Amino acid sequence: MSRGIIIVGERINATRKRMSKAVASRDEAHVRREARMQVEAGADFIDVNAGRGVGDEADDLAWLVRVVQSEVEKPLCLDSADPKALAAALPAVKQPPLVNSINGDPARIEVILPLVASHGASVVALAMSETKMPETVADRMAICEELAKAVADAGVEMSRVYFDPCVISAGTSPDQPAIVLEATREIAKTWPEAHVISGLSNVSFGLPLRRLMNRTFLAMMIAAGADAFIVDPTDPGIRSTIAAAKVVRGLDEYAMGYITASREGSIG
Amino acid sequence: MSRGIIIVGERINATRKRMSKAVASRDEAHVRREARMQVEAGADFIDVNAGRGVGDEADDLAWLVRVVQSEVEKPLCLDSADPKALAAALPAVKQPPLVNSINGDPARIEVILPLVASHGASVVALAMSETKMPETVADRMAICEELAKAVADAGVEMSRVYFDPCVISAGTSPDQPAIVLEATREIAKTWPEAHVISGLSNVSFGLPLRRLMNRTFLAMMIAAGADAFIVDPTDPGIRSTIAAAKVVRGLDEYAMGYITASREGSIG
Repeated sequence: MSRGIIIVGERINATRKRMSKAVASRDEAHVRREARMQVEAGADFIDVNAGRGVGDEADDLAWLVRVVQSEVEKPLCLDSADPKALAAALPAVKQPPLVNSINGDPARIEVILPLVASHGASVVALAMSETKMPETVADRMAICEELAKAVADAGVEMSRVYFDPCVISAGTSPDQPAIVLEATREIAKTWPEAHVISGLSNVSFGLPLRRLMNRTFLAMMIAAGADAFIVDPTDPGIRSTIAAAKVVRGLDEYAMGYITASREGSIG
Repeated sequence: MSRGIIIVGERINATRKRMSKAVASRDEAHVRREARMQVEAGADFIDVNAGRGVGDEADDLAWLVRVVQSEVEKPLCLDSADPKALAAALPAVKQPPLVNSINGDPARIEVILPLVASHGASVVALAMSETKMPETVADRMAICEELAKAVADAGVEMSRVYFDPCVISAGTSPDQPAIVLEATREIAKTWPEAHVISGLSNVSFGLPLRRLMNRTFLAMMIAAGADAFIVDPTDPGIRSTIAAAKVVRGLDEYAMGYITASREGSIG
């Protein structure tokens, strides 16, 4: 487990309306601005997702990769449901990326893991099967065990694996967030070399005050041992919670980072 | 463990300058206002602490008890380092109070527990010895074991015990908050009938942006199993975090309380 908290900036995502338009119209300036803004807000990786449901995703993703890399120096998180788009994008990537994602689907594992291995990439391993979302801690651990085996067989070190325990909305599934926290503790204990990553905004799906719910769950996930988050780093609540949580977890000794950020006014 | 989160309103505390003056001058209006405000903000208990370091604490505490009880109907948390002041205040209390506190000091246990038992009170049991603050999880568990025995011997049910794992500042002791979270999980698992309480503001002692640190640690403590907090319920960050954390912990099914508070604008 890394000593820090890894932030994957989620804003360059064409499943959202504004970014979908920017990709469709090849609006470089917009994409550059979003990349720059996230790096300045502390992103360690820039997520690029070109899945707008129409057009040629591989082509769109290649364009996003090129534009983002020409603007900022951070590594990318290549985010696609389409293994072909991932395969096409990987050769153009300048720094070892995070590939998002594999899950229990054997066909997906078979195509993606060799690419991850040969490009020195890291990989998000979703604790869900090919066909359905997990329910219990045991469901999640069973899939993580399978994925850990597949990863080892492919020659990818555990330090390059980011397990995602699959956050489900508290609004529709009241028991799920506590189960996800428990699964996070379990994964972190079982594979201390691996990372635990979460795109935690699902927790607040369908609820009001989503930022409040997200930042509260974020603090709990960090306490449980998650160390990577797919979030909007420009959200002050997210940034502030991460800074405070690092102090509590002992990841910011004597709170030097927290005190500095407080003086600079970048948290509050 | 209660299904909810219990809020002990901390504002009527004469160790603070403004309240010390109010007690010294017998400013009833100020005390009434503070009591009312905290009840309106959701306090389940009103803490009364008359420890201003001068004057007659027993007399001051009896006055606070009378004034607060004439204004609001909530039970009190009688908060004093002086067993004599506690003994003098208890007969005047109208509803079974929370007595704050016992610790590993046998003399204190011997005087206070019989009072707790005979008044049907609950009691805060601090995980610290007579002479020093705990360091490890094991230090805390050893004292909690002792206190659990003493409580059982006195005929007080575990459901009336509020274990306090003793929060120590993250600024001076970087490892302590994570240890306190672990101790909280351990206590909640060992004595599921008991409560875990925390006056969590110590976590931010000596640090900037104390409210940010407190609310972040609060979320983590709730996830770890703490269910009672000595806090300022009029702090919107505290109130909002508790509302969101209850949803995550499954203590606010289908988020009805959260959604209502959001509509009323009392969280955000």
